[in-house]
Parts: sequence; C-alpha cells; structure tokens
Amino acid sequence: MATAVAPLTLYTNKGCPYAQRAVIALKETKIPYDAVEIDLQNKPVWYQPNINPASKVPAIVYGATQADKTVAPPNTTKLAESLVLVEFFADLVPSSHLLPSDPVERAKARFFITLVGDKFNPAWQGLAAKGEGEEAVLAAVKQIAGELDPQGPYALGKEWTIADTAIAPFVGRLYLIAKEDIGAWEAGTGPKLLQQLEQVPHWDRYAKALLARDSYKESFPTEYLSERLKERFAAQRK
Amino acid sequence: MATAVAPLTLYTNKGCPYAQRAVIALKETKIPYDAVEIDLQNKPVWYQPNINPASKVPAIVYGATQADKTVAPPNTTKLAESLVLVEFFADLVPSSHLLPSDPVERAKARFFITLVGDKFNPAWQGLAAKGEGEEAVLAAVKQIAGELDPQGPYALGKEWTIADTAIAPFVGRLYLIAKEDIGAWEAGTGPKLLQQLEQVPHWDRYAKALLARDSYKESFPTEYLSERLKERFAAQRK
Repeated sequence: MATAVAPLTLYTNKGCPYAQRAVIALKETKIPYDAVEIDLQNKPVWYQPNINPASKVPAIVYGATQADKTVAPPNTTKLAESLVLVEFFADLVPSSHLLPSDPVERAKARFFITLVGDKFNPAWQGLAAKGEGEEAVLAAVKQIAGELDPQGPYALGKEWTIADTAIAPFVGRLYLIAKEDIGAWEAGTGPKLLQQLEQVPHWDRYAKALLARDSYKESFPTEYLSERLKERFAAQRK
Repeated sequence: MATAVAPLTLYTNKGCPYAQRAVIALKETKIPYDAVEIDLQNKPVWYQPNINPASKVPAIVYGATQADKTVAPPNTTKLAESLVLVEFFADLVPSSHLLPSDPVERAKARFFITLVGDKFNPAWQGLAAKGEGEEAVLAAVKQIAGELDPQGPYALGKEWTIADTAIAPFVGRLYLIAKEDIGAWEAGTGPKLLQQLEQVPHWDRYAKALLARDSYKESFPTEYLSERLKERFAAQRK
C-alpha cells in the first residue's frame, strides 16, 4: 500500500487546527512520519529560512531521511499549506479513499472545503473572537449541512475524506468553546448555540461523527486547547 | 479519451478571470461543453436559485443534456468555484496532463496556486486599483518565479498544468493594464513595472509562455477587457 512513500517529516504544533488537518490525513493514510513540534510563539531561527519561508505550520520535508531536522537535504521536497498537504497524503495512498476515486465526488469534496474556509470558519471565529452574531454561524452550518450526503455518516457518505479532514479541527474547536462557554461572547451564548446546532437537519449527526473519529480524537488535545482558548478569548473579551 | 465525459454546461462571463480559468481548462482537456454567458451586472433571475447559490461564475451543470439551460435536471450535478472546476476537468481527462501524475508534482502545482490567490493577486490588484506600491508586486512575482521549473516553459516544466491555468488570466490582465498604463496609478507606472518584471529571473520567459498559449489567447478578449478595465480603474483613480 504505502510502499512508494518516502521518508517524511511533519513540522507541526499541537494547538494549530491547520496542522491538525495534516495529522488527521497522515493517520488516515497510515503514512509513517517523524513529527517536529514548532513553538509558534518562539519559533526556532532555522525554521523560516530552512523549512518554510511562510514560517507557518504545517509544513513537510519529503523524500529522504533527514539526519538533521533543522535543514532539508538537497534531494527532498519542501511543501506547505494544510490543504495541499492533505491532498498530497491522499494522492500518496489512494487506497485510503481519503480522496474519492470518482471525479464528481472529488469535486464535491473540494467544493465543501471552500465552504469551510469561506463561510464556516469566518462565521464561528467572528462569534468566538468578536462576539458577532450567531446568525452567521447558523447560516454557514445550514449551507454546509445542505451539502452533506443524506445517508452519512461523513460529508460524502460512508468514507472519511479530505472534506471531513478539512472541517473536523474547526468543528472541534467550536464545540469545545461552546460547551465550556469560553468565547469572547455574552455568557450563555455557547450552550445556546449548541442547542440551535442540534436542530439543523443532518448537521448534529455529522458533527458527532467527526468528533468520534479516532484520527481526530488522537490529534485533539482537549485539556491543552481548553486552557489555551480560554486565555485567548479572555483577552478579546471587552 | 473523453469517452466517460457527460454533457456539461458552463455558466461564464467573458470578462471574468475566474471564468477564464474554467474555459482554459476545458480547452486544454478538449471536453465538449455548452456555454451560457451570464451578465454579471444584470444577472438572470433564475441563476442564483437554480444554478449557483453563490450567484458567481464560473459554475457548471454536469451529467445530462439540459434542454432548458435555466434549470439543472435532477440527474445532474451543480458545481462551482474556479479551482474546483479546473481540478474536476483535469480529473475527467487524465491524459491531458493538466494535473501531473506524480503526487509531488501535483502538490507543487497546488502550492503554486495558493501563492496566486494569497500573494500575486492581492499585490497587483492593490497596485492597479488603489495605487499601492510596486514592491509588493515584485516581491510576489519573485516568490512565484522561485517556484518555477528552471527549464520551463511552464510552471512545472514541459506540460501546461492547473498551475498555469490558475495564474494565466491574472497575468494577462496585469500585463494588459501595465502596457496600456490604465491602472489607478501615477502615469508611467505600468510601463515601468513591465521593465522591472523583465528583470526577474525566469519570470519574463514564463509570462511570455503563458500569454502565447492558444487556450489562453482564445479566451482573452483583449479589446473588450481593455475598454472594461480602463473604465473600472478610471473610477478608482483619485
């Protein structure tokens, strides 16, 4: 299965939802990898010049064994951007079904992902960080729910795909701050939002399926994120 | 080759660079299609409810003959978003090489495309529409040039790919307004920028190769765009 896969190092951060996308895809494809944790508040001096000019996570070095993780050997490829990496891992292991084999299903998965970045994330982050209205979150969730396979449990049906990989880290964070009511919003907004989300046809079952997936759970450090998000939104609360 | 391809209708607009991406990909893959021109200033009332909820072009209806182009029959798929469509057409016709067969090359093409949307377009559009500095354009072009295959002529080498498809409509518009000096900028900025771009290693050859490609030329209505962009930027000039 993964015989054609070369050595891979993932530069990651346990608090970063974009990095979690890459980790979920690696777990789903069972690609072996080494992980290097990057402290985003205090990045190592070698990271930007040697690994990722954009200085973000996730990034990878792929193609050969790296004795020294602070440099990319000449016969390796450096890649970045979470969605590029997720599709790359899917391409490396077609048998994982992370990318559907049917072109129409692939296109649906990619369209779903554009909604995550263009609608879902701006809406819930606006609510959590700036106390913007719940209406935008509900509208985005309804639009996404309208794209879900009615049979489920995942976005495109029985198989977990790039679509689920792209949204899961963000659904996880939204549900965490909603349950713990720790957004920069009026007290009680979180639990109220969860009740409203439960009413959206297809969505509630979908969110539960995402949050129950092993690859997601193993890469979502609940306690660490709870602490970190509490701090972050407390600073943004007026 | 294209035997598995079903009937396809493209909803497009001749002035829209995103729609041009879809047209280029259709020409490169030789997928047969019907085109419906959408007047973006005066959209038909059926477009948003029946074809694309986001009300943008490009969009497609795929899968069965449409006697009436104002509705999508039940056994068809509606798809939108230019990059989703470009990858879809590439997936329908793998022999077109629009999407490289090697996963690493695919990932490089997709990473290149993220630079187009995140760096190149905001930089030149900021210069053209708001008179922002040329430095950002040169920085973006240098970063993109650094990703080009040194042998060329295209981004990834000998084959025209999704990367070239994604950037060509925007390079075409930048070069048009620069040559005609019609941005919302100080007079002379356009020609000066072109001279600076000629000096960027690998870039000048690449831009020329893009603008010489048949699929690009056939979908770039120079005179129409010249008129339209002149009007648009004149309104933004202070």
